[in-house]
Amino acid sequence: MANDEALASLRWNVRDAAVEIIDQTLLPHTLHWLRLHTLDDYCHAISAMQVRGAPLIGITAAFGLAHALACDASDAALASARATLLATRPTAVNLRWALDVVAQAVAPLPPGQRAAAALDSAIALREAEIASCASIGDHGLAILQELARVLGCSAQRPLQVMTHCNAGRLATVHWGTALAPVYKAHAAGLPLHVWASETRPRNQGTHLTAWELQQAGVPCTVVADNSCGQLMRAGQVDCVIVGSDRTAANGDVCNKVGTYLKALAAADNGVPFYVALPASTVDWECACGAEIPIEERDAREVLWASGVDASGANQSVRLAAEPTRAANPAFDVTPARLVQGLITEHGVFAASPEGLARLRKALGAG
Amino acid sequence: MANDEALASLRWNVRDAAVEIIDQTLLPHTLHWLRLHTLDDYCHAISAMQVRGAPLIGITAAFGLAHALACDASDAALASARATLLATRPTAVNLRWALDVVAQAVAPLPPGQRAAAALDSAIALREAEIASCASIGDHGLAILQELARVLGCSAQRPLQVMTHCNAGRLATVHWGTALAPVYKAHAAGLPLHVWASETRPRNQGTHLTAWELQQAGVPCTVVADNSCGQLMRAGQVDCVIVGSDRTAANGDVCNKVGTYLKALAAADNGVPFYVALPASTVDWECACGAEIPIEERDAREVLWASGVDASGANQSVRLAAEPTRAANPAFDVTPARLVQGLITEHGVFAASPEGLARLRKALGAG
Repeated sequence: MANDEALASLRWNVRDAAVEIIDQTLLPHTLHWLRLHTLDDYCHAISAMQVRGAPLIGITAAFGLAHALACDASDAALASARATLLATRPTAVNLRWALDVVAQAVAPLPPGQRAAAALDSAIALREAEIASCASIGDHGLAILQELARVLGCSAQRPLQVMTHCNAGRLATVHWGTALAPVYKAHAAGLPLHVWASETRPRNQGTHLTAWELQQAGVPCTVVADNSCGQLMRAGQVDCVIVGSDRTAANGDVCNKVGTYLKALAAADNGVPFYVALPASTVDWECACGAEIPIEERDAREVLWASGVDASGANQSVRLAAEPTRAANPAFDVTPARLVQGLITEHGVFAASPEGLARLRKALGAG
Repeated sequence: MANDEALASLRWNVRDAAVEIIDQTLLPHTLHWLRLHTLDDYCHAISAMQVRGAPLIGITAAFGLAHALACDASDAALASARATLLATRPTAVNLRWALDVVAQAVAPLPPGQRAAAALDSAIALREAEIASCASIGDHGLAILQELARVLGCSAQRPLQVMTHCNAGRLATVHWGTALAPVYKAHAAGLPLHVWASETRPRNQGTHLTAWELQQAGVPCTVVADNSCGQLMRAGQVDCVIVGSDRTAANGDVCNKVGTYLKALAAADNGVPFYVALPASTVDWECACGAEIPIEERDAREVLWASGVDASGANQSVRLAAEPTRAANPAFDVTPARLVQGLITEHGVFAASPEGLARLRKALGAG
């Protein structure tokens, strides 16, 4: 996979001065590019998960704030648009981070200069995001190459990588976080195979990860989330790499619900468990995972499933009998002790207060 | 829930001399009683999971063998029918056990007496199965009552029980194994609430456990399998009780895939994890879980989902884009070290070689 704009999941269309996103709620059955016209469009795109993944949410919100300022560049409008965008998803820390970057760039400027500066800021964030993921991919590649060397991997015995949810190009702008090392390894000719856990209740593994890996020609098999422990016990997993929605200053990782269970199984079977994340995903104000609020989403996500019927038409089916109740916590926290390392754009760091302090120093904020 | 024939999941209709089962593939949307007319009907009922759950599979197979002997009571027919029924599900050890009980009862008899003896044996097995589950319920009830006492449970703070898959009356003939203590506790007025994990890929939690608990008036909430670790970390689970398809002589437990992940999360959070099983589920020839073959089922179970559409019509949807591949190991093994205790019809035993030896002694085989 080259660093190709055609593979981006969010485009800035210069000619029409418009943001275009892939509507991920329609994947994998329909690839539809959607233009965002209003602040409501941006907020809906985030809250309805037309875009998802912490990095992509941040970039989308940055463009949303730029859009709002093009309509009204007053202090009141800036504060209001920022608050509206921030409320769309409570867990994603780099939603706040991206909004802060844009807001801090434009706040000192007179209103007449704010819209252009905000757009420049959003475009720069997008470019930096792509570069950051490429760098995560390079650091993760070194880990995969070393694992493959130790295990004697070959075309007959490919490296077995498990991932959860989607932390690929569809969760970022390009490359992905957890999948960036996979794409880099595939490009480098390292034989590998990915186990994509389906990631109930929204099936991002089945809908998104399997789709984007197939598009890139990476061998991939979907499994029920429940199967991940059994695959590890059977020796069929060499490492796990997942993304992160928010990482605490002690190395605790908040990510899509189910991540914690895979980390427990990895620890129980001696399988290295890595988290790939841009440094913007670290919440330096958050001392540990217990402080992170867990988003509770609509019970319908658990009680219904969406796909296509035998004729190829989109269809939703109710799995449960009425009036079955469901709970739907969307994230969980994986304790730092279960994490082998944090793969960032600045290198690989221990998931510990010391490791995070070293990352902060690398960021120049230490 | 009384010991009421109307709540049985397999009936012997004396008047018509026919076995009737609930077709569980149609639940929870349709309650349909199905009569089994041929040996093929019995085999299909087991392999297609119209009946499922280790105890119910055993009872169904016993009636199937009796049916076959009513048609042809020769030694050759007995061996052939036994082999055919045994091949329907490789994991369920008490499928073999139930067939052995019937076969041993009839083998010494002249062919002319075999059919009636086999039927008597199947009917007796069914009665014993109901009594056994009731007894599991009584032993488990004592555990739940003690937990509720220690935790100070009340209507405002009910006891929180998590279960996986379906080990209720639909998995047995009546009462269930994992759910028998729940039904007994509910009947005894102990305030409780059940977390039913949906149990992908076949959704037995959503389709069966939620349905039968609602029928019995037990408060219940369905959650994605992925959520179970998060609920435990949040202190929302007081104990886990699951069933078992096969238990090794060292206490390792083979059960529906995903059980192992819940056991890991329970251990990591100090939540007691119990397995409820009839002694017939113990495979005394099996030294440890690693010896148990894991059934690999059709990938379509992972790639498709079934339910009803908005109009209430049965519908299946394909979740994945073509040509996505899936793997589908249907069981996993939970190491004995993660199991707090085995709740059997003979009492509660440690999940260890010593505990199993005590159970064997209680069975009179030691």
